[in-house]
Amino acid sequence: MKGGLVSDSGKVLLSERRPTPRTEGGDAVVAAISDFIGHLAAAGDGEPAGVGLAVPGLVSEHAAIYATNLGWRDVPASAFTTLDIPVMLGHDVRTGGLAESVLGAGRDVADFLFLPIGTGIAGATVIRGEPYGGSSGWAGEIGHTPVFPDGEQCACGQLGCLETYASAASVGRRYSQRAGLEGVRAEQVVTSDDPIAIEIWDEAVEALSLALATYTLLLDPSAIVLGGGLAEAGPALFDPVRTRLVKRLAFRDAPPLLPAALGVDAGMLGAALLGWRAAGRPELGPGWDVDVRSAPLVS
Amino acid sequence: MKGGLVSDSGKVLLSERRPTPRTEGGDAVVAAISDFIGHLAAAGDGEPAGVGLAVPGLVSEHAAIYATNLGWRDVPASAFTTLDIPVMLGHDVRTGGLAESVLGAGRDVADFLFLPIGTGIAGATVIRGEPYGGSSGWAGEIGHTPVFPDGEQCACGQLGCLETYASAASVGRRYSQRAGLEGVRAEQVVTSDDPIAIEIWDEAVEALSLALATYTLLLDPSAIVLGGGLAEAGPALFDPVRTRLVKRLAFRDAPPLLPAALGVDAGMLGAALLGWRAAGRPELGPGWDVDVRSAPLVS
Repeated sequence: MKGGLVSDSGKVLLSERRPTPRTEGGDAVVAAISDFIGHLAAAGDGEPAGVGLAVPGLVSEHAAIYATNLGWRDVPASAFTTLDIPVMLGHDVRTGGLAESVLGAGRDVADFLFLPIGTGIAGATVIRGEPYGGSSGWAGEIGHTPVFPDGEQCACGQLGCLETYASAASVGRRYSQRAGLEGVRAEQVVTSDDPIAIEIWDEAVEALSLALATYTLLLDPSAIVLGGGLAEAGPALFDPVRTRLVKRLAFRDAPPLLPAALGVDAGMLGAALLGWRAAGRPELGPGWDVDVRSAPLVS
Repeated sequence: MKGGLVSDSGKVLLSERRPTPRTEGGDAVVAAISDFIGHLAAAGDGEPAGVGLAVPGLVSEHAAIYATNLGWRDVPASAFTTLDIPVMLGHDVRTGGLAESVLGAGRDVADFLFLPIGTGIAGATVIRGEPYGGSSGWAGEIGHTPVFPDGEQCACGQLGCLETYASAASVGRRYSQRAGLEGVRAEQVVTSDDPIAIEIWDEAVEALSLALATYTLLLDPSAIVLGGGLAEAGPALFDPVRTRLVKRLAFRDAPPLLPAALGVDAGMLGAALLGWRAAGRPELGPGWDVDVRSAPLVS
């Protein structure tokens, strides 16, 4: 997990990583986060005004309602720190989307899709500047939309999901299987001239184009912001997806495809925005000029 | 076109139909609407407080920006009446969605899809009670999302669009073609035991299930409200679509499929809500108890 201390002028005063003790159970993860927050708070000048947390699963501002992989059920926001300061929670992908909306690639538009493509694929639909979680917090599962109705079975149990063709993990896995090799990584597939690699990457691009065409027709975004490890492939991703997306759309223009601007810091910066909202300062953010670290090639 | 006079307590005082003079050009249609409004206004007790209009194409509250089939380009709201009363425009499908949201099947939920299935298919995404038009007013084209990536060519030029399999017009057309008959209508196909009819209807149901699974995963609606002529097929539509939708979703529940409540009056009632908004009375609507006429079997 990542954590940081961000000033009211958007200066990242401190940013650190710690291992997440998943194997020790949900309470241990909560305790580790609380300890991490205490450590970050102690490093600052006085007590922080608020805490923002980006967490996976089903989440409201006030509680981590459900997260299978962390073993959480209805953990209230206050459980994450022993300090007497307000805490606001956000969904991990949507918190990254909030940061891209306020500080990053979506800064100049109000309605866009933030789509990080990493080990998995999930998106944040940003509407009028704010990420939209749906009726109950489960929106954004674009990675599990059925792009190929009779396609391969996804680990989720459904058929032909976008994620099972186009995530970094899937591109690596599908190439390795088809080529009879082991552990080939997505970035190697993307840049390879091997016919099997070209085929696998082509299928990933086609899956992405279909999902983005559907998104565009349904929600008419001003832009599509691609992030995550796979977006680091740059033109090898953007160029063919753009071409195919245009081709899939007959009666309307394709929205521009933009690279995410905040890289691996999107979640932490979004959490900082939530922390300032928790502190009663929702106006902070738009004026910030953040210093962004680069992301790894494929994560 | 349909028009009516609706009181501030939601009473439909008068409702009429008139032919739309499409062949005479855009100005003639505007003039016909203006004449219709004058007629309706004269029939009431004093001058109306406001006018609401549901129109196709690209539309803002203040102008009909673009409508190919009517030949409109940047027609200001004020052009639609010679009376000195405020006018508010809305997109046709989204105005129906607004009515279903405030007065109809979506009355008890805030986030849902309104999907009228008629000659064509377009949807209204209702978010926090209000239809969402996207970044520029082109949202809701669910009928042209590519449900079968290598499917049949749609009249729009794209491949495998939902509409080309599942609209009432397409169900009739596809059956007629495959059976070598002429002019068979969708409602005959839906209820037929003919193996070709079963096949065509099955493909329509599959296309709908795919589009609704994608919508559900992306936007997590509280409900899906099916309307239009084809929804009059009742259980013959709802039952198989529900079963397939559940089957397509592995890790989340399917939202309930509800029949639209306002039938052919949805657009007019939504326009009435817009008219009262134009008159500065946005609070009107939720308390109304409307009297709804039934819709035709398949339109």
